[in-house]
Amino acid sequence: IANNQNGELLPAICFIWQIAMIALFAIFVRYDPEADAHWTEYMHQNNITSNIENDFYYRYPSFQDVHVMIFMGFGLLFTFLKRYSFGGVGFNFLISAFGLQWALLMQGWFHSLDSTDWTIKIGMKSLINADFCVAGCLIAFGACLGKVSPIQLMVMTLCGVSLFAVEEYVILNLIHVGAKDTGGSMVIHTFGGYYGLTISWILYRPNLHQSKRLRGSSYHSDVFAMIGTLFLWVHWPSFNSAIGNHGDGQHRAVINTYLSLAASVLTTFAVSSLSAKRGKLSMVHIQNATLAGGVAMGTAAEIMVSPYSALVVGVCSGIISTFGFVVLTPFMEKHMKIQDTCGIHNLHAMPGVLGGAVGAVTAAFASTSVYGQEGWASLLTSLILKQGYLFSLGCILRLPCWGDPEDENCFDDEVYWEVTATKVHILATRLYNTLFIYVFFFTKLPEDEESVPPVNQYNDQKADKQTDV
Amino acid sequence: IANNQNGELLPAICFIWQIAMIALFAIFVRYDPEADAHWTEYMHQNNITSNIENDFYYRYPSFQDVHVMIFMGFGLLFTFLKRYSFGGVGFNFLISAFGLQWALLMQGWFHSLDSTDWTIKIGMKSLINADFCVAGCLIAFGACLGKVSPIQLMVMTLCGVSLFAVEEYVILNLIHVGAKDTGGSMVIHTFGGYYGLTISWILYRPNLHQSKRLRGSSYHSDVFAMIGTLFLWVHWPSFNSAIGNHGDGQHRAVINTYLSLAASVLTTFAVSSLSAKRGKLSMVHIQNATLAGGVAMGTAAEIMVSPYSALVVGVCSGIISTFGFVVLTPFMEKHMKIQDTCGIHNLHAMPGVLGGAVGAVTAAFASTSVYGQEGWASLLTSLILKQGYLFSLGCILRLPCWGDPEDENCFDDEVYWEVTATKVHILATRLYNTLFIYVFFFTKLPEDEESVPPVNQYNDQKADKQTDV
Amino acid sequence: IANNQNGELLPAICFIWQIAMIALFAIFVRYDPEADAHWTEYMHQNNITSNIENDFYYRYPSFQDVHVMIFMGFGLLFTFLKRYSFGGVGFNFLISAFGLQWALLMQGWFHSLDSTDWTIKIGMKSLINADFCVAGCLIAFGACLGKVSPIQLMVMTLCGVSLFAVEEYVILNLIHVGAKDTGGSMVIHTFGGYYGLTISWILYRPNLHQSKRLRGSSYHSDVFAMIGTLFLWVHWPSFNSAIGNHGDGQHRAVINTYLSLAASVLTTFAVSSLSAKRGKLSMVHIQNATLAGGVAMGTAAEIMVSPYSALVVGVCSGIISTFGFVVLTPFMEKHMKIQDTCGIHNLHAMPGVLGGAVGAVTAAFASTSVYGQEGWASLLTSLILKQGYLFSLGCILRLPCWGDPEDENCFDDEVYWEVTATKVHILATRLYNTLFIYVFFFTKLPEDEESVPPVNQYNDQKADKQTDV
Repeated sequence: IANNQNGELLPAICFIWQIAMIALFAIFVRYDPEADAHWTEYMHQNNITSNIENDFYYRYPSFQDVHVMIFMGFGLLFTFLKRYSFGGVGFNFLISAFGLQWALLMQGWFHSLDSTDWTIKIGMKSLINADFCVAGCLIAFGACLGKVSPIQLMVMTLCGVSLFAVEEYVILNLIHVGAKDTGGSMVIHTFGGYYGLTISWILYRPNLHQSKRLRGSSYHSDVFAMIGTLFLWVHWPSFNSAIGNHGDGQHRAVINTYLSLAASVLTTFAVSSLSAKRGKLSMVHIQNATLAGGVAMGTAAEIMVSPYSALVVGVCSGIISTFGFVVLTPFMEKHMKIQDTCGIHNLHAMPGVLGGAVGAVTAAFASTSVYGQEGWASLLTSLILKQGYLFSLGCILRLPCWGDPEDENCFDDEVYWEVTATKVHILATRLYNTLFIYVFFFTKLPEDEESVPPVNQYNDQKADKQTDV
Repeated sequence: IANNQNGELLPAICFIWQIAMIALFAIFVRYDPEADAHWTEYMHQNNITSNIENDFYYRYPSFQDVHVMIFMGFGLLFTFLKRYSFGGVGFNFLISAFGLQWALLMQGWFHSLDSTDWTIKIGMKSLINADFCVAGCLIAFGACLGKVSPIQLMVMTLCGVSLFAVEEYVILNLIHVGAKDTGGSMVIHTFGGYYGLTISWILYRPNLHQSKRLRGSSYHSDVFAMIGTLFLWVHWPSFNSAIGNHGDGQHRAVINTYLSLAASVLTTFAVSSLSAKRGKLSMVHIQNATLAGGVAMGTAAEIMVSPYSALVVGVCSGIISTFGFVVLTPFMEKHMKIQDTCGIHNLHAMPGVLGGAVGAVTAAFASTSVYGQEGWASLLTSLILKQGYLFSLGCILRLPCWGDPEDENCFDDEVYWEVTATKVHILATRLYNTLFIYVFFFTKLPEDEESVPPVNQYNDQKADKQTDV
Repeated sequence: IANNQNGELLPAICFIWQIAMIALFAIFVRYDPEADAHWTEYMHQNNITSNIENDFYYRYPSFQDVHVMIFMGFGLLFTFLKRYSFGGVGFNFLISAFGLQWALLMQGWFHSLDSTDWTIKIGMKSLINADFCVAGCLIAFGACLGKVSPIQLMVMTLCGVSLFAVEEYVILNLIHVGAKDTGGSMVIHTFGGYYGLTISWILYRPNLHQSKRLRGSSYHSDVFAMIGTLFLWVHWPSFNSAIGNHGDGQHRAVINTYLSLAASVLTTFAVSSLSAKRGKLSMVHIQNATLAGGVAMGTAAEIMVSPYSALVVGVCSGIISTFGFVVLTPFMEKHMKIQDTCGIHNLHAMPGVLGGAVGAVTAAFASTSVYGQEGWASLLTSLILKQGYLFSLGCILRLPCWGDPEDENCFDDEVYWEVTATKVHILATRLYNTLFIYVFFFTKLPEDEESVPPVNQYNDQKADKQTDV
């Protein structure tokens, strides 16, 4: 049933939307002077002596890193579920490509509409901001991973991008004039986090345990997700510096983020080891909480916080993020009806709040005129503003027309993707079950599950087969 | 038998070829003035005031992205076959490293031979062009993936690079003076596409169905291929701008390609969903057709086409490319004796033609002196010119001395690579078959293959095991 | 038992260390003038006219590539073991993040301590050097992969970084004034190689064969490792040019490394094919020896060696490296009590020595004042200097308090990581063994293990299942 709606709606939405985009781009979007054939004139008018002064050369390497983070970092991080890797990376691809077009328009209308001819001039900085805007929606996707249909995701992205642009406008231009949120702790991460959690709360599924068998990782899907983590970790300094000020601003943002990330890795390993019996490490923590240092450094990345403060920020964010995975996520699922698949509350929402606080505190010590002074206010606004909007959006998403998967088919690629060998998979499952029952009841297990029992070793190749696929 | 020839010939060819390269490089190749110890003098002579004006800083970030595309993008995209991942990524590595050396020489001789001392001066732009030239050959590899030996691939690459340099010279310098094909829609993609298809047609294997069991993907090999796709997709703006003009040229090429790619993602999802029953998406389409927007934007990337036109190009290319996978590839295999393993006709050849057309049309509207006006002519030449050459090359490749795999061993890494646990694999296969027959005949299947049947849930770990390896 | 110590010690070490880092950073570390809010004043004082002259824009793209190599290149290369992928990529992550903070301090104290206020000013070049320093320790990790605990790795990294900074200071400043080792053939690779081999020799495990079943790769773990290889290979030109001189220096280092790497790919394939019966290629060789060209080009990367010499260096390094894997590693394990898990002797130590020799020879031909003349001396010093230090370190690491795995649990992620489905894994192993014995004794194998036997093809999906997971 779910699929049929998918089959009808998805192509229609994609086509209609893309045609609307073409029309709106034709009306509103032009090249920035730095990307226009009149660049040479522009150079003369502005006393620019060399092509290398084009903003392109200041920002393109950072932009590419951000682009990699959006499509590869988030995409691969979402492949961690054993049987939802296609959906994780594939829907991430779809909604990013969908969202960035709308983000170019929305951010253009709200932030850079040229009042002389009512057009939006796009250049390198617009592309980076569009990617940032999409990042907020991907964070929200993380909370709903495996439980929503691609069409719901597209609606979420459409509304998310719109809300994001409005909220950013309100915070940075009306409430808090002259404020800056270079790496988007507040605007991107706190926004995306609470957006996703609210949606997830409205779409609560009381019977989600019916697909519990699929809600976990396999050995290799964890390695895929780890690649995504590393993409995000390595390129985060670019994320926090991409729209920074030329010169020392970008330079300093990179140093601060680099240090904060390094510190959060150590505390994540520490807390992860502390939280498990026998001190074993958990891949979920390593895949997520190690990134909290980058999130928390976002707002203050460009500020002269001094290197050791960046380490302190990293330490705190790593601790609260891992702690969140250990304690808060299970608590929220049990008692607050929030099913947060990827734990975005721990990775984005909380470290984002921390980052906003850091930004506000450092700004209070710094010259007001430069850094602004209402971090707390803007943070609060960011949390409150959207709840009404979200409630109505959530009600719309609960309508039974979006083709979302049934409770027992959540986290399963079979619903939306052609996966090879369906019948064989069913048969193998059945065969496995039969054999499992036999082995389970007629075999004595070792007392301790810590170590694989000494396999009798008449032939090495046997052991190879166990994990060789 | 195949292997023996591989064992004798491959090392010999590698050594002889590499020694020949050393000799030719010693005679012909020198550093470009911008990479030479005389750079400081060169700066004074040319009134360059800063090291940052060195072409290195304009192009190195883009070059690195292109380099990633060649070795990681193409390489991982070719790992999609369930049992040919080593061959896909490994042979891609071999022929790229082999081809780029020859490309530096061929392109140097034809495009930038210094007539005063008969040497080739290599710099950043030469390395990028060598990578581009290799890309054409990798496209051709895609059509033959799994069906040829590494030695055949090296011969194909050698001849391909030579042909490419000559053809590029003829099109861009003789026929069509002053033309430019920044992102290589015509020169790289159309060339590589039809080169590979012709070779594949000549090497047609009527009994390829004997290795049908291996001609498909596995769940994780599809994720590996998706990583390759994302590398290509994310870095394609660099591909189309890497040899663009400094300043607004490179800037605009990035914007156009970024938009075109985003649009082709949406139409690919739409057509893929439309083409399957129940609207299920196909990984093959997502892995390939989403890239068509980059191919089609190649020629016109630097032109002032305006942002919405870039979206239109992306829309069209995504549609024709996905359509090609659904309709044309099966048709060509059945009726035209073209076995196109990776569907390069859909991803490179057709969008390349579209891109050439876009370039020609936009050039016709633009100032002739800047953009040229003979796009169509050059496109046609590109298609016709090489057929004679290709026919003779194909006949050579059909000689029975190249160690190509037998029909039942196509798409199998065992032929050229040491793969662990061969015996165990055979035994496991046999055991599996035995059990399969039992289960197949004595078990009633569910009517509908859409959903995994409700597995009895006395123990969760069981389900974990099914997909956990 | 091992785990318990891990559980107690690891968090303690991480926290104490990180707090110590914060204290030391607070005392010693400040921003470089180019990353400081006083940059604008600095520009005026130094007649710099544009922000684009900030060192950030010269080095950031290369830095990002180096960062990717450290965390993704090394990390994924270490996932090749079938059941130690978490440990490979995870511990690489931990010790890199741990080591780079200490490296910033040690290198600051020894190389760039500001004598006016006793502080270290960190900028882009410091971050690159910290990454380089960590690379040396990761090389050493490669020799011990799977046989040591994370705590031992942290001790190794701490001591390695300290030793590295001292040694670099002695070689480049005391013995060999004015010498330069741009890509670190001598300082990084030879250092890291012999450091790791010495540790591995001291920690020799006579009963390592007890975990032989896990000391091998699986099909997909080999593909993961290959991604790591490609990251390293593609970005190596950035590694060798990252701290090069602005302008032609960085430009030339990239060209030389690009050519050397390409040449070593061809000779690696050749020697790998020669060394196996039937000419089959080995993934171990392709994953490692193809990188030797980058290592060997390190010291001389910036020198005017001429392009063909770079090819010669690549050819030689590819040959000796592959030869090392085929002959030396087994010999060293059997007769010299050195268990070198990743073969770092072949990839780093030997090509590093070659690179040092190339640097010394070319420097002898070049102007002495520019390139120095005591390469050999410094190379020798690099080898001798640290043996005493290493011996005491090794004795410390042999103390029974570090929680290292027992001989039969080496190369097993279960010891330090939460791996899903432990019980099921045990049961599956047991079931597999039972069935294996049956099949092994009652089934006749084909004579030749070269090819998979013609599977009876009554149903294609069967074959899909074999490798589909």
